[in-house]
Amino acid sequence: MPQNTQTNRQIVLAQRPKGAPDANTLRMDTTAIPSPGPGQMLLRTVFLSLDPYMRGRMNDAKSYATPVAIGGVMTGQVVAEVMVSNLDAFAPGDHVLAGSGWQDYALSDGVEVLNLGPAPARASWSLGVMGMPGYTAYAGLLKIGAPKVGETVVVAAASGPVGATVGQIAKLKGARAVGIAGGGAKCKHVVEVLGFDACIDHTAPDFVDQLRAACPAGIDVYFENVGGKVLYAVLPLLNAFARMPVCGVASWYNLPGLPDGPDMGPAIMGTILRMKVKVQGFIIFDSFARSLYAEFVRDMTGWLEAGQMQYTEEVIDGLENAPDGLYGLLEGRSFGKRVVRV
Amino acid sequence: MPQNTQTNRQIVLAQRPKGAPDANTLRMDTTAIPSPGPGQMLLRTVFLSLDPYMRGRMNDAKSYATPVAIGGVMTGQVVAEVMVSNLDAFAPGDHVLAGSGWQDYALSDGVEVLNLGPAPARASWSLGVMGMPGYTAYAGLLKIGAPKVGETVVVAAASGPVGATVGQIAKLKGARAVGIAGGGAKCKHVVEVLGFDACIDHTAPDFVDQLRAACPAGIDVYFENVGGKVLYAVLPLLNAFARMPVCGVASWYNLPGLPDGPDMGPAIMGTILRMKVKVQGFIIFDSFARSLYAEFVRDMTGWLEAGQMQYTEEVIDGLENAPDGLYGLLEGRSFGKRVVRV
Repeated sequence: MPQNTQTNRQIVLAQRPKGAPDANTLRMDTTAIPSPGPGQMLLRTVFLSLDPYMRGRMNDAKSYATPVAIGGVMTGQVVAEVMVSNLDAFAPGDHVLAGSGWQDYALSDGVEVLNLGPAPARASWSLGVMGMPGYTAYAGLLKIGAPKVGETVVVAAASGPVGATVGQIAKLKGARAVGIAGGGAKCKHVVEVLGFDACIDHTAPDFVDQLRAACPAGIDVYFENVGGKVLYAVLPLLNAFARMPVCGVASWYNLPGLPDGPDMGPAIMGTILRMKVKVQGFIIFDSFARSLYAEFVRDMTGWLEAGQMQYTEEVIDGLENAPDGLYGLLEGRSFGKRVVRV
Repeated sequence: MPQNTQTNRQIVLAQRPKGAPDANTLRMDTTAIPSPGPGQMLLRTVFLSLDPYMRGRMNDAKSYATPVAIGGVMTGQVVAEVMVSNLDAFAPGDHVLAGSGWQDYALSDGVEVLNLGPAPARASWSLGVMGMPGYTAYAGLLKIGAPKVGETVVVAAASGPVGATVGQIAKLKGARAVGIAGGGAKCKHVVEVLGFDACIDHTAPDFVDQLRAACPAGIDVYFENVGGKVLYAVLPLLNAFARMPVCGVASWYNLPGLPDGPDMGPAIMGTILRMKVKVQGFIIFDSFARSLYAEFVRDMTGWLEAGQMQYTEEVIDGLENAPDGLYGLLEGRSFGKRVVRV
């Protein structure tokens, strides 16, 4: 059943996954389309963003955000169209950026909703390079990583929306950008289209040696979004006073528990000590002031208009295909920013 | 043979230890007392500092300082008396703070040597609360940890010269100070003499539970100097936006290799991410500008004179006892700042 005007399809958390999510994790329910009361509007979802952080919301763990409840609608940012509005700031036909989750319709009181206007060009980009992933790359790289001209910046998931933006901004700031991605096609794209200096395939048997060879002057900024073997390959290459913004550890999101040893704790902490590394975790909208967002929008708009920033989007059709779309993304099978056209 | 005017005893690195250093690691050699040339002075060692970082200098690993060579004199800070001087800024009888290592006599060109004057009161304190350990505590806590009034600061080796100073400065700044130390006698001292709010014995079987109970509002600053099980007990207690200055990982210095699993990497990095923690390694004289040192001397002198800072020193007699003194310190058997009266 596609999106229609009679019912509201919702994808809800059926059970918390142990390890990788599967067909039992999410479930589609159907309910009535709600009616907006005073001070509310009705939104119809147009695009749904798929992002690695969503795996964390399925867990019932101490974290930066409340987990999704069992039976609750999955969290997610969307671009939606206003269908009915009892709010002055929003009119029917306006498109908005909202956090209304994996469903066809939702009510909103307009709080923390951005009005994109009646006919935004490239509306879905608000979920990617012009939105949360782009801002994550911008703020984390420039405010924590702070690359200097000639320094080496390394980022994994380099064909993804965060990694691609990190490397391109690094280049714009005069740094050397080394990407890491899964497979030759992605690596080729990262170098030839995105303009990174090098991109290493983490599936190669000699990945560690290739990374070392691509960073002859060591690593000054490692933008951490994956953890795991990439982090462990980076550690011995970090230079004195290196910086490591941490926005994710995607390769570990599906772990059912701590992996087998050896314990890399001494290597992580010993490197931080000896090389005087600064490691800083950040959650984009918690960690940075709103003032920086305006600066980001200004810079990113300028770079895109000048053709200095390339952006790749992968569109999946149908809300019913969102779960598999997310699982594939978590397994590294996406290419560019993955969104669902609901 | 005690210190004498005929020969120069030197303790040199005989072989690099695998794991804990032992009787084969260091060796005493005897050489002639050197003669100062133009622009040099001859120093006689009075006090030798023993510090955990010395274990790292025995390894041939990429680090912040050149390792001690096999057959080379062990690195260390000393308080020494000027015996002969061909330098204008130093006169016979002056006492100095120098980095001349584990030996009776040394030549110096006066570079990076601090003149303490002819009869300094409490000269050995320049190796502790008024020197490198005190400055490490001061700069790391205030510039990286930056505790706010009412926040909780946790530090291990709390009866040692760094930990004791960290906790006392935390209290002076209005924070709650929770120490960790080995054994009841040290913990009693940390609370009753140093004035920490609590001190947990890490040898207790319910150490983890006790630490949690002592930090009912979580941990805002963890001053990392030990690593290991203390770090792992701290991780789940860290609050959002916690800070972790890292000046050492002493419990891991004797590891011959990575310990058995599980791999705690995902727990370390996951906590940094979720709780938006800032972790920053620092090596005191590399990481902080000289300007901060003057501020430290001013503040620390004031606190000591006002009786707001307590300091405990443990003096071992004889250069020949320095190796066992260091090994005991690495095993947690020191109490307060350990120095050798040469």
